[in-house]
Amino acid sequence: MEQKLNSFIEVSPQSDFTIHNLPYGIFSRTAEGERQVGVAIGDWVIDLAALEKHGLLKLSDQDTYFNQPTLNKFIESGKANWSKVRKTLQSLLSVDNLTLQENEALRQEVLVKQDSVTLHLPIQVPGYTDFYSSKEHATNVGCMFRDPKNALLPNWSELPVGYNGRASSVVVSGTHVVRPSGQIKLPNEERPVFSATRKLDFELETAFIVGKPTQLGQPIAIEDAWDHIFGMVLLNDWSARDIQQWEYVPLGPFNAKTFASSISPWVVTLEALEPFKVEGPKQEPKPLAYLQENIANTYDINLSVEIQSPKSAQPDVICRTNFKYMYWSMAQQLTHHTIGGCNVQVGDLMGSGTISGSTPDSYGSLLELTWNTTKPLTLANGETRGFLQDGDTLIMKGHCEKNGIRIGFGEVRNTVLPALTFDFAETSEPNYEAV
Amino acid sequence: MEQKLNSFIEVSPQSDFTIHNLPYGIFSRTAEGERQVGVAIGDWVIDLAALEKHGLLKLSDQDTYFNQPTLNKFIESGKANWSKVRKTLQSLLSVDNLTLQENEALRQEVLVKQDSVTLHLPIQVPGYTDFYSSKEHATNVGCMFRDPKNALLPNWSELPVGYNGRASSVVVSGTHVVRPSGQIKLPNEERPVFSATRKLDFELETAFIVGKPTQLGQPIAIEDAWDHIFGMVLLNDWSARDIQQWEYVPLGPFNAKTFASSISPWVVTLEALEPFKVEGPKQEPKPLAYLQENIANTYDINLSVEIQSPKSAQPDVICRTNFKYMYWSMAQQLTHHTIGGCNVQVGDLMGSGTISGSTPDSYGSLLELTWNTTKPLTLANGETRGFLQDGDTLIMKGHCEKNGIRIGFGEVRNTVLPALTFDFAETSEPNYEAV
Repeated sequence: MEQKLNSFIEVSPQSDFTIHNLPYGIFSRTAEGERQVGVAIGDWVIDLAALEKHGLLKLSDQDTYFNQPTLNKFIESGKANWSKVRKTLQSLLSVDNLTLQENEALRQEVLVKQDSVTLHLPIQVPGYTDFYSSKEHATNVGCMFRDPKNALLPNWSELPVGYNGRASSVVVSGTHVVRPSGQIKLPNEERPVFSATRKLDFELETAFIVGKPTQLGQPIAIEDAWDHIFGMVLLNDWSARDIQQWEYVPLGPFNAKTFASSISPWVVTLEALEPFKVEGPKQEPKPLAYLQENIANTYDINLSVEIQSPKSAQPDVICRTNFKYMYWSMAQQLTHHTIGGCNVQVGDLMGSGTISGSTPDSYGSLLELTWNTTKPLTLANGETRGFLQDGDTLIMKGHCEKNGIRIGFGEVRNTVLPALTFDFAETSEPNYEAV
Repeated sequence: MEQKLNSFIEVSPQSDFTIHNLPYGIFSRTAEGERQVGVAIGDWVIDLAALEKHGLLKLSDQDTYFNQPTLNKFIESGKANWSKVRKTLQSLLSVDNLTLQENEALRQEVLVKQDSVTLHLPIQVPGYTDFYSSKEHATNVGCMFRDPKNALLPNWSELPVGYNGRASSVVVSGTHVVRPSGQIKLPNEERPVFSATRKLDFELETAFIVGKPTQLGQPIAIEDAWDHIFGMVLLNDWSARDIQQWEYVPLGPFNAKTFASSISPWVVTLEALEPFKVEGPKQEPKPLAYLQENIANTYDINLSVEIQSPKSAQPDVICRTNFKYMYWSMAQQLTHHTIGGCNVQVGDLMGSGTISGSTPDSYGSLLELTWNTTKPLTLANGETRGFLQDGDTLIMKGHCEKNGIRIGFGEVRNTVLPALTFDFAETSEPNYEAV
């Protein structure tokens, strides 16, 4: 059982950002100001660039790692440094350490209120891959879009199905999401129409961030895979279901998902998650040898989704589920990704796929929660939702709790803006003013 | 009709690299030496960094663009600069210009023999997208893998179907390609096996490189799309057909294509291609308004594929086709890619999809040429091929010719290496020694 640590900074027992967590992010003191590496603790951000400048966080004599616009350089510096920084910060923040605690000038320079800073995309993402590893989600989608009798395709139980996503449109929590337009095929029309999506959806996911690269042609063995993972974030894999249904055969989702994928700003490290490790679901059939892993290989992470209607005072919780329900582990996903020789790079983002549980209130998308609008959700204020409406804010949260120790991801929160208007008849040029 | 230009450098009439071409690449004088921007002319490379240093190629007083490991910075500098450099080089190389011609010391510094340099990946590729825009190819694949009666899926004629590829494994011509291993489902087995691919294939493609970025949420209007394209390369979209067939439903190809995608080292600009513009195939049904383009929107580019068996003295030409057969134009592809709001970045690589013609000798993959091994190819030396064998070298070439003016792409050439050996039973660790 992990020893409970105490920080001299007051942290609410309900905070995601205890001294046991110490997630990394990128912040600036003003919206356009210089970006630095920060770590969240309670309501504060610790400015790691300032600590480094004062010689309190030295990884090398020659180089700096925290006066940086992304985490990539620090992550590239290697796993030993990830541990070293964690230990140093836990020591500096401890009630027993007076270095920061009793130096007010230094504290004022190093500690910044979270609500006063701007948080940025923490990672420069060279590649984004999204898996499809929830058996419940794959079964639900298969029931609706293909054949309820054979909902799960034969390959699903043999390998972690995944596809390449679009890295350029990965954005941070807080970024507004414009409702995408595209081709939609209506049931009674012979040809598709061009329209704003009528089925804008979220997908509740987590994602891991690759911390150690590989060379082309060098697969990662399953027992080495965990060493290649730096940490995890929450991911909302925004989806336009009507665009998706028309476009996705045979090469997979494209415009239905490339308009935005949003992540939480704080990267929670595997080291912080370690005490919450649990065994995953039994895998039957037993995977092929290269995917076999005989250790506890997942984490007990409580996840929830809230929808904040612009007409409601409070958000409605519409889904509660848990990361531990995922069938394929992150190590299995990464090993499978590289088994043919594909190389990975530091900062690669690998999504879990929608995380659905077995009960209807644990489904990780509106597609499933409303069973493709046949069972609309009723919000507390009486409004209903089939899919997302303009002005809706979608909030995902995640945290772990065990033996009185809590760590969490904070949230990923984005508001839906109306679609662009297009006027092809006159000019063929999109009009970028929103409706 | 374009005026024929003459260079003081002797260029063979059969060279792809005439003064009308001037394609950009990245070279180093030694394998590990410093990388610089170069332009190909005849058998030579012009060192643009050296020209810049001597004040003969000045784009800005403050900055340098050619002493760079990739073309991205130059491309980012904008279309006006692309034209300016082209004009400057055509002038410097002209028989009428003595600046270089009569300065032997300068010539020796600026001109390097192509066969003495190492060519590198010309672009840092932030995103790789692959389309599927040959009607003949889509029809052939649909016949073999789905339903011959409905080979072309309904969405194919309405939009340029595409998917996100894997940018990290884009490599330059000359890089060896290791035969990938993965899951294969054999017809008479209940479960898949882990095996080296038995169906290693090429796909003859071209790709364009994005030269002007967009912001998230800002679609490119079709009439602006050409301004966002810097140039084109040849692309071999390596494919493992057996891995692909097992994995690709429902999210598209993944490990079957992420092990390598190779491109030619020289980027041919749209300006160089301009004289070879022709009208594309008639599009029926007429595309939706956002995809309508009423101009000549493709190029007459002769393409060929050769296979060099290690047992043969000469390569065999196994395919001749032409880029002008492609149904969807590059502008249509780019506009469709961004219509939902997806942003593009400088250096993004967008593949055409396999370029097949209508006759069996113009198919752009072995899958089609051998009709999935049912009609093996016979090489001149009597060997046969269903798919590629270890040691085979695959060569793709492309050129345009009109009114005595020729420009070309050079080639993309890669040799197949044997698969890795794996020994999961003992250690679960891949053994990186080749068989």
